[in-house]
This record gives sequence, C-alpha cells and structure tokens, in this order.
Amino acid sequence: MPSQPLPTPADVERAAARIAPHARRTPNLRVRVDGRPLVFKLEQLQLTGSFKLRGALNALLGGGERPERVVTASGGNHGLAVATAAALLDLPATVYVPNSAPAAKARRIEATGAKLIRHGATYAAAAEAAMTDAAAEGRRYLPAYDDPLVVAGQGTCAAEAVADSSDVDSLVVAVGGGGLAAGTVLGSGGRPVVAVEPVDCAAFQAAQEAGRPVDSDVDSVASSALGATRIGELPFAVLRDSARSVVVTDDQILAARDRLWDEFRLAVEPAGAVPFAAWLAGSVEGDLPCLVLCGANTDWTPS
Amino acid sequence: MPSQPLPTPADVERAAARIAPHARRTPNLRVRVDGRPLVFKLEQLQLTGSFKLRGALNALLGGGERPERVVTASGGNHGLAVATAAALLDLPATVYVPNSAPAAKARRIEATGAKLIRHGATYAAAAEAAMTDAAAEGRRYLPAYDDPLVVAGQGTCAAEAVADSSDVDSLVVAVGGGGLAAGTVLGSGGRPVVAVEPVDCAAFQAAQEAGRPVDSDVDSVASSALGATRIGELPFAVLRDSARSVVVTDDQILAARDRLWDEFRLAVEPAGAVPFAAWLAGSVEGDLPCLVLCGANTDWTPS
Repeated sequence: MPSQPLPTPADVERAAARIAPHARRTPNLRVRVDGRPLVFKLEQLQLTGSFKLRGALNALLGGGERPERVVTASGGNHGLAVATAAALLDLPATVYVPNSAPAAKARRIEATGAKLIRHGATYAAAAEAAMTDAAAEGRRYLPAYDDPLVVAGQGTCAAEAVADSSDVDSLVVAVGGGGLAAGTVLGSGGRPVVAVEPVDCAAFQAAQEAGRPVDSDVDSVASSALGATRIGELPFAVLRDSARSVVVTDDQILAARDRLWDEFRLAVEPAGAVPFAAWLAGSVEGDLPCLVLCGANTDWTPS
Repeated sequence: MPSQPLPTPADVERAAARIAPHARRTPNLRVRVDGRPLVFKLEQLQLTGSFKLRGALNALLGGGERPERVVTASGGNHGLAVATAAALLDLPATVYVPNSAPAAKARRIEATGAKLIRHGATYAAAAEAAMTDAAAEGRRYLPAYDDPLVVAGQGTCAAEAVADSSDVDSLVVAVGGGGLAAGTVLGSGGRPVVAVEPVDCAAFQAAQEAGRPVDSDVDSVASSALGATRIGELPFAVLRDSARSVVVTDDQILAARDRLWDEFRLAVEPAGAVPFAAWLAGSVEGDLPCLVLCGANTDWTPS
C-alpha cells in the first residue's frame, strides 16, 4: 500500500481551480457510431497535446513552497508537459531524456525554454540522473503518475467531461502508469470507469492478477505513452476496486485510430485511440459512455 | 437583387430544430494565441467533414414535398454533404462530378449509397447535366449556396457557437459562394461578422467593389472549397451591408493551417484556416472573436 494518503474527489475540485488559468478546458463531442451514441472528451486538444499538463500544473501549484527548479525525466508527453507547465509558471525546468530520444521530441521540450539533458541508454538511467540532480537544494522532482497531486490534476479531465455532459453513464480511459485512470475514478462523480490498455503492455491487468503492482513486459504501438513497466502504487490503490480492466490488441488500436481520423477528423496518437478500440470491440457497457481521447503527439501522418 | 425573400434569424432557429437529430453539434474550444483569447468553432468535426451538411439537411427537411430523388453537382464538400444528408433521410441521390474529380472524393460520395455520374470536363458541364437530370418529375436540384434554406441551415453553425460562448464579440468565417457567411450573419445574434477569402479567389470583395455579384478569377490553395467564380445573389444580399470583407494570401492560409496543427492538433483544409489567417494578420477586431473552422476534407498530411 502507498505510504501517502489517497487523493479524493475534493482534491480534484481544488486542482480544477488551480489549473484553470493555465490549462485548456477541452470540449466534449457527441457522436453516433454504428447507430449508438457516444461522447468523446477531446483531451488531445489540451495544451502540449496530452492530459499530462493537468497533473504537472497541479503538482507545481499545489505542492507548497515554490522550488527554484523543476526536474523530471521523460522524452514523451510528461516531459513536454512539465517543461510547459514550468514555463507557464515562470519556473526553470530540467528534463532528462535517454540518448535515444527522438530529435523532434527533444526540440519541442527545448522550445519551452527548459534545459534538456541527454543521459544514458535507457529511461531508467535518465531517471536516475534526474533524481540525483533533483536531490540538490531548492529542486523538486516531478513524478509522472505516482503522486497524489498529479493524480488529482489528471482527474480534472473527467470532472470537466461529466460537468459538460452530465448524462454520460461511464468513463473509458487508457491506463499506463495509472495517473489518468486513477484521476478519472476521482473525477467521475461515481460513474463506472473502464481502464483500457494494450494486451502486450498491460501493467494494470498484471497488478490486478498479482494483487499488487508488478513488473510486466512492454511491447505495443502505444508504448511511448502507456509503456510503464509497472503501475504506480498510489494509482493502483485508487483503481483496484474502482475500475474494470480491459485489454485491446495493437491491431484494434490502430484500426480505432484510423477510424477517428476517417470519420471524425480527430488526429490522435495510438494511446488516444485505446478507449475507442475497447468500445468498438464491445467491451464497454453503458448507454452513453464518455471516451477520453488523451493525446495527439503522434508521428503518424493521416492521409 | 434576388427574387426570393431573404432568410431571417427565425429561419435559422427553425433550421436548428430540423437538423438537430441528424447533424453533430460541434463544440467550441477556448484558447489563447500569442497571449490573446480566441474561440474556435470546431465545425471541421461536423459529419462529412464540413458545415455543408447543415444546409443540405435543412433544404431537404424544410423544402416541402419530399422528392423522389435529390440531384446536385459537386465533387467537393457540397456533393458529399448532399449525398450524406440524402442517405440519412433515406432519399436516393445523384451527384454529378466532372471527369477530373479525384477518385478518393468520388469514393467517399459513392460510399453513402449515392449514384455518382462523371460528366464533362468542367464543373459547369457537370452542373448543366445535373440541372437537366433534375428537371424530371419528382426530382429536386439542391444548390450549393444560392438558396434561402441552405443559407439558413449554414446559419445554425454560428447560432450554436454564440449559444455555447455568449461572450464572443465577433464571428470570423470564410466566404466562397457565400452560404456559410450569410448564414453566419443571420445566426450571429447581431455580432459583427468578418468574411474572409483568399486574395486571388475573392468573389465577395469583387461583388462589394462592383455593387453586385460579378465573375472573378479563382486561383488559391483554398479553391476546392472557396472557389466560386461568383458569390450567390441571395448570400450577397444578406452580406453586403452586414459583413466586412477581408482578404488573405495563400502563404498566410498555409501558415495558419500548419499552426492549427502544430499548436492545437486541429487538422483542417486550407479553407478552414482562412479565418485564423486573417486573425494572425491582425485583420480581426474584438476582444473575443469566434473563428469558424469550417472544413477538414484535406489531402494534406500533417507531420
């Protein structure tokens, strides 16, 4: 069990008030697919192209004393979100990425004004260097998901969705490290939550089977966003009795992504299509589910 | 002057009630660009990828006796919208396109179940054949913009935008044949309307200078959507004293389109970026303008 107290729906409300001046309030879109109604929460339109900005902002605004510098490790959505949140709040930031991080993603992080440091062959090596760096006086390490303020911040996404469409009767969300999924439970107003992940990148399913977070393999088209080897302790404590686990194949994810483009002109990364893949597969209950499209940082080019 | 009575804001309200069961209610997105607030009306997410569905539905639902077959001529957004609206209402449709119409667009029209007829070297030749066809008993020709029901239908887009964000203080919209722009005047709740077009495809500007609709050249990256050689009589009668004319260059349009993708993950066709191009050029007044992103039927692939 995590040593920290679990975040609550009230923490999500506080987070919403904190981040409102800086984050985009993303809209819902009501559609019919194959004759059945659905709501898409268009969170891929969030500043930085993913929901991660919400948690980063809430952690920086709600975390007590203002640090002199924010430090994190991530070449993906979290790194860009932390760099952008820090820039919005006029805080210096350092983002560690592995040597292999793609130049395009590194450039987007540097464009925020953050200091980018390439270190090591793996994410773990970059993260270790970042932790060492952050141990210095006045610095704060910003975790990607295993943190109550981060989870509460991500919960503002679901809270907006149900405030804007109070008739939705379930929420469907991708799960990787578990920050967004746990936040969705807290922000759902008590509605059932379905947490979906790729079948070969299924840290939540593995934890459910083991009864605790355990390491699992990561091999999916959605790995760059959902590829946590182990779900966070704190997110899992929120999710274990409150979210239903569903898995989808990579083929289902890519088909869902392509359909979002072809029928709706919504461009998402594979992780953003994971909930729709589960819905198309018939794995989602409810008369009006809300599917969270959580990211658009894709190298894919729709055609 | 047009021989038909001009449509009114009350016609837009009637249109909204008629089309609601079939069209998507597209959302607004509030953003800040270069520190200034803006509202985007995400009409590129409309069913068929453009606003044209609204006018087509209203014309079919509000036009009295149900025809046995709907006929139109267009290889672009209007053709797809008419074919889709007819399918939604269980009406047979015939769409004439020039021999040169791209295979991809023809396939999308045929996928609705409509009969596609390739005829002639030009749009004018295809349109003439369509008119002849539509003269037969029980058939109805559906015009692209010079029609009061079509204009009122397009007006529902602006009416939704101002209902959802009543604090917007102007509306900015692309103008081609004038159906959407005229509808925007009727649906704007009295707010100022800016009608923007490419400098080398400027039928509204030409009409304003001549005092009446006149032929003008068409040569723009946005020609496929905005390339009317002459603005409609009826739209012009609505627009002439009620909308301000602004022109933008093709370079400005493409830069605006790329920025919508890079910063917002919004994929639009060149016509859909025309209002943002005008705003970026400083040609739009107001503290909170609403920019209508009117279409996403692009062959362009964001990267």
